[in-house]
Amino acid sequence: YGKNTIKFLRLHREGKKDFVKQVEVCAHLRLTSPKEYLEGNNSLVIPTDTIKNIVLVLAKKNGIQSLEQFAIDICNHFMTTFCQVAYVKTYVQEVPWQRLHEDGVPHIHSFICVPDGIRFCEAEQCRNGPLIVFAGIKDLKLMKTTQSGFEGFYKNEHTTLPERHDRILCGELFCKWSYGECKDFDFNCIWKKIRECILEAFAGPPDCGEYSPSYQKTVNCIQMLVLSRVSQVQVIEVVLNNTFYNVVDMKNLGLTNDKEVLVPVEAPYGSCACTLGRK
Amino acid sequence: YGKNTIKFLRLHREGKKDFVKQVEVCAHLRLTSPKEYLEGNNSLVIPTDTIKNIVLVLAKKNGIQSLEQFAIDICNHFMTTFCQVAYVKTYVQEVPWQRLHEDGVPHIHSFICVPDGIRFCEAEQCRNGPLIVFAGIKDLKLMKTTQSGFEGFYKNEHTTLPERHDRILCGELFCKWSYGECKDFDFNCIWKKIRECILEAFAGPPDCGEYSPSYQKTVNCIQMLVLSRVSQVQVIEVVLNNTFYNVVDMKNLGLTNDKEVLVPVEAPYGSCACTLGRK
Amino acid sequence: YGKNTIKFLRLHREGKKDFVKQVEVCAHLRLTSPKEYLEGNNSLVIPTDTIKNIVLVLAKKNGIQSLEQFAIDICNHFMTTFCQVAYVKTYVQEVPWQRLHEDGVPHIHSFICVPDGIRFCEAEQCRNGPLIVFAGIKDLKLMKTTQSGFEGFYKNEHTTLPERHDRILCGELFCKWSYGECKDFDFNCIWKKIRECILEAFAGPPDCGEYSPSYQKTVNCIQMLVLSRVSQVQVIEVVLNNTFYNVVDMKNLGLTNDKEVLVPVEAPYGSCACTLGRK
Amino acid sequence: YGKNTIKFLRLHREGKKDFVKQVEVCAHLRLTSPKEYLEGNNSLVIPTDTIKNIVLVLAKKNGIQSLEQFAIDICNHFMTTFCQVAYVKTYVQEVPWQRLHEDGVPHIHSFICVPDGIRFCEAEQCRNGPLIVFAGIKDLKLMKTTQSGFEGFYKNEHTTLPERHDRILCGELFCKWSYGECKDFDFNCIWKKIRECILEAFAGPPDCGEYSPSYQKTVNCIQMLVLSRVSQVQVIEVVLNNTFYNVVDMKNLGLTNDKEVLVPVEAPYGSCACTLGRK
Repeated sequence: YGKNTIKFLRLHREGKKDFVKQVEVCAHLRLTSPKEYLEGNNSLVIPTDTIKNIVLVLAKKNGIQSLEQFAIDICNHFMTTFCQVAYVKTYVQEVPWQRLHEDGVPHIHSFICVPDGIRFCEAEQCRNGPLIVFAGIKDLKLMKTTQSGFEGFYKNEHTTLPERHDRILCGELFCKWSYGECKDFDFNCIWKKIRECILEAFAGPPDCGEYSPSYQKTVNCIQMLVLSRVSQVQVIEVVLNNTFYNVVDMKNLGLTNDKEVLVPVEAPYGSCACTLGRK
Repeated sequence: YGKNTIKFLRLHREGKKDFVKQVEVCAHLRLTSPKEYLEGNNSLVIPTDTIKNIVLVLAKKNGIQSLEQFAIDICNHFMTTFCQVAYVKTYVQEVPWQRLHEDGVPHIHSFICVPDGIRFCEAEQCRNGPLIVFAGIKDLKLMKTTQSGFEGFYKNEHTTLPERHDRILCGELFCKWSYGECKDFDFNCIWKKIRECILEAFAGPPDCGEYSPSYQKTVNCIQMLVLSRVSQVQVIEVVLNNTFYNVVDMKNLGLTNDKEVLVPVEAPYGSCACTLGRK
Repeated sequence: YGKNTIKFLRLHREGKKDFVKQVEVCAHLRLTSPKEYLEGNNSLVIPTDTIKNIVLVLAKKNGIQSLEQFAIDICNHFMTTFCQVAYVKTYVQEVPWQRLHEDGVPHIHSFICVPDGIRFCEAEQCRNGPLIVFAGIKDLKLMKTTQSGFEGFYKNEHTTLPERHDRILCGELFCKWSYGECKDFDFNCIWKKIRECILEAFAGPPDCGEYSPSYQKTVNCIQMLVLSRVSQVQVIEVVLNNTFYNVVDMKNLGLTNDKEVLVPVEAPYGSCACTLGRK
Repeated sequence: YGKNTIKFLRLHREGKKDFVKQVEVCAHLRLTSPKEYLEGNNSLVIPTDTIKNIVLVLAKKNGIQSLEQFAIDICNHFMTTFCQVAYVKTYVQEVPWQRLHEDGVPHIHSFICVPDGIRFCEAEQCRNGPLIVFAGIKDLKLMKTTQSGFEGFYKNEHTTLPERHDRILCGELFCKWSYGECKDFDFNCIWKKIRECILEAFAGPPDCGEYSPSYQKTVNCIQMLVLSRVSQVQVIEVVLNNTFYNVVDMKNLGLTNDKEVLVPVEAPYGSCACTLGRK
C-alpha cells in the first residue's frame, strides 16, 4: 500500500468574518492488484501528486465542515472513482488555530495557535465493506498535583519502588474512539463534549478532586465516563504516557522537602493503554 | 565558561488550593581564572551537580514568585557566595501549566499544558557590574488571514515574486525586552500587559484589523506599541519567523481558487528581526 | 496493557579493550486480569520501576551479546517469573556507537556515534505460545541520483504529474523481518548480511546501477533479494518514505537547468510499504 | 535585518560518475536604511524569493566546490549587486551524503546519509570591511569509556557530587574556527584535517588513550592541537554538551555493579565552552 501527507489551509469568509481550518491529511491506499510491486507495472498506480490534487479539490469544493465529514468525503471519492482501490484510510489532523480575542471581543481575521490537545479523525473503508469513522484527541498534557497514589502493587526481589499515597499524576493523553453508524452526527459538538468528559474524569470535582489509585484506574474512569455520557461512541481507546516526578531528597542539604520541589524523571518512561467497548 | 540546565517543578499549597510552577533553568558561569581549561586544575570549578543543588535549594526556600525574581535570586547567590565567579547569566523558562476549569469553575489541583507562547526571562551580571534583567515570550504562533500585502519591493533580473495586496501573514514570534533599574516591578503583571500589546499590534482592531505592508512593518508596530504603553521596557527585540502560504493554482484542474485553498511553503523560510530602544 | 522505556549503557572489558552497547529497551506487558483498570486493585501490577530493575539486572548478569538475545532473555524472564503476565513484547534499539579509528588503528576505549541506519529488534510471546523474534533497521537514508523514473501510471482529470524517466530516488527506509524457529542463530552476522542486501538491491551494480521504475518496485527488489539470500528470514516488511526533488525551473531566470539544481519537496510526502513472506 | 533558509541539492556528472551536494543555506541581510521597518516603505527590500533565486542561480553557475567557496560567492554577489546591503552573512550546512560502497567498490550514483558530525561554514562581510570566513563541525557525538575523571573541584555545603577518577566522558561536540586571509585555501582538505585533530585530541593514542581530568581540559586539548597543527586557523571555539552517566547502584538488588551498567542522566545537562586564539 502507499500513503502520503498533504498540508493545507482552507479559508472562507462569511460577511466580514474569516474562518480558517489548517489540516494535515494522510491518505492510505491499497490496490486490488500488487503488480506495481511485483512487475513494476504502474498502470493502476495513482500518483501521490494526483492524490494531493484530489484532496485539495475536495477542500475547495466541499469546504471542511468537520474533520470527520472531510475524511468521509475523501474515502467516498476514492471508492467511487477508482475501481482499482481495494482499501482506503484517511487520517485528518487539525492545526489548532483559535480566533484571537482582544478584551473579550473576537477578531474578524486574526488567530493564535493553541495546542492544548490536537483533534484528529480517521475514516476507513474496504471495498464492499462499511465506512468506519474514528475521532480522537492527542498531545493533551494534564497534571494533578495531589489525590493520586500507587499502593498495594506486586512485590518481589526486584521491587525497589516505595508505596506512595500522595504523588503527582502527570501525563500526555491520547484518546481515540469509533462511531457506529454515523449519519447526521454533529461531529464538532460531540468532540467538544468528549474533551470535557476526559478533563472531568481526569481531574474529578473542582473543589476536591477524586483519588486516583493508579494511572490504569484513571484511564478506565475516562473511558467509563465517555461511554456513559456519549451514546454515539462505540469503542474507546486511551493511552496515558506518564511522566514521573521524584521529590528531591534534601536531607544532605539540611532541608526537609515536603513535596515542594520535584524533578521530572525522563527514564524509565511508562505508558498504560486500554481499549474499552460496549457490551 | 560552562552552563547547565535543570528542570523541576515547584509546588505549594494555600488553603486547599495547589499552585504549581514548572521551570527549566539554565545557568552560565564564567570564572575569573581559566586554569581549569589550561592546566586541568579543578580547584575553582563549581560542578554542575552543585549548581543544580543550589537552584533547587533556592526554589525550596524562596519559591518562584515570578521567573524574573527567581533568576535574580540565582544571580545574587552566585555572585555573593563564590568570589571565583566573574560572570553569571541565568535563563528561566516556564512550562505553561494552566489551571483546569470545569464549567468555568477553577479546579483546586488540576492543570493543563497550554503552550500558546512560552514565557522566559534572563538575568545577568558581571562582577562589579549592574544586574540586568530581560524577559520575553517565544513560540507564539499567530496568523492574519487578510489585511496583509507586500508590494513596491526592489526588483531586478532575479525577481520572480509577484506583488500581493491580500496575502496570509503567519509567523512564529520571539520577543525579548530589557528592563532598566528593576526594583519593585510586578513582573507577572507587566508580562501579561506586553503579551496583550503584541497581540493587539499584530492583529489591529477586532472589527477591521490594520493593513500590514510587510512583516518588517508589523515587527516595528509591535515594538512601538510596547514601548509606548509599558514604561519599564528599555529595549525590545522582535523576531518573526514567517511561514508563507501559496494560493494553489487550480486552473489546470478546471477550478478558480479565490484564496480559498492555500499550502504552507516550508522552504524558503524567512525571518525578520529588529531591536528598538528608547532615545 | 502497559509499556515503558529504559535507556542504559552496558560496558565490558576484554583485556585492555572496552566494548560498549547503549540501548533503549521498551517492554510491553498485558496481564491476565484487568482488575487494576476496572477496580483499581493493584495487587498484580508490576511497577515500571520493577521492570526497569529487571532489565538492568539482566543486562548486568547476561551482558548484551546481541539485541535479539537480550530481548529473548527479557521475554523469558517475565514469562517464567510472573504467572499474571499474559503477553510480553520487548523492543530493543541500539545507539550506534562505533569504535573510533585513528589512521586505521582501532582505539581501545573511544567511540563515535554513526547513525546511518538504526538496528532494532522485537521479541514477543503469549502465554503458552511460541516466542517470535523480529529484527530490523530504521532511519536508513538512501539516494540514487539517476536510474529512476515513474511512467505509465493511471491518469484522469486530476492528474498533473508529468512522466519522468530520470528522476532522483531518495527515501528513508524502514525494514523489519521475522525469524522462524531461531535457535543458535548468529543474529549479528545475519543483520549485517541483510543490511548489505538492502543496499545492493537499492543501488544495483556499482558500475551502472539498475533502473527503478517506481518506489514500489524498489521495495519489492529489496524484499526479494533478502528472501533469496537469507534463509532464516520468514517474512519481510519494507516501508520507504520517499522525498521528492523538483528540478528548479530556471527559464524565467534565463538559464537551462539540466537536472543540476533540485529542491526537496516537503509536502506532499509519500511512503510505500509492502510485506512479503515465503510461500 | 532579515534572514531566510533555502535547501537544495546540486548534482553534477563527470564521466559516468555522479557527484552530489545537498545544502541548507541561510542568508542574513541588513540594509543601510531601516525605512521598511519604520515607514513600511519596501523600495529597498530584497524579497526572500529573490534571495532564493540568487542562491540557486549561483549554485547552477558555480557549482559547490566547497561550502566555504559557495558562502564567499554568495556574500560577494550581494555586496557587489545591491548597494543598499550594509551587511551580509551566509551560513551553509551540508547534508552528509556519502557515496555507497559495495564490497569496497564505490557506486557511481548511490549515496547513504551518514550524520557523524555535520560540516558547516559561515562567511560575513560589512560594507567596506573584510570578508571573514568561519568553518565548523557540529552534532559530533563522542564517548570515552575510561581515562576520564573529575576530582579536586571546589566544595561547599551544597556539594554532593563524589570525586571520580574513572567515569564515562560522553558529549556532543560543536567546533567553529575562523580563517584569516583565506585566499587559495583547500577548504575541503583543511576541514578533514581538523576533524582528525578533534578525534585524536578527544581520544588520545589508540593503544592507551590519555587521561582527561575534566571536560574543560579536553576542550582545551582539542583547541591546542588544532592551533598547533593547522596554521590557517586563527581562532577556535569549542562547545562540549556533556551527557553524564550514573553507575546504577545495585546493592539493594543483591549485586555489585563495577561500572558495567550505567544510565544516562538527562538533567542536569551541562556544557562547557571556550574560545581560544593565537597570540
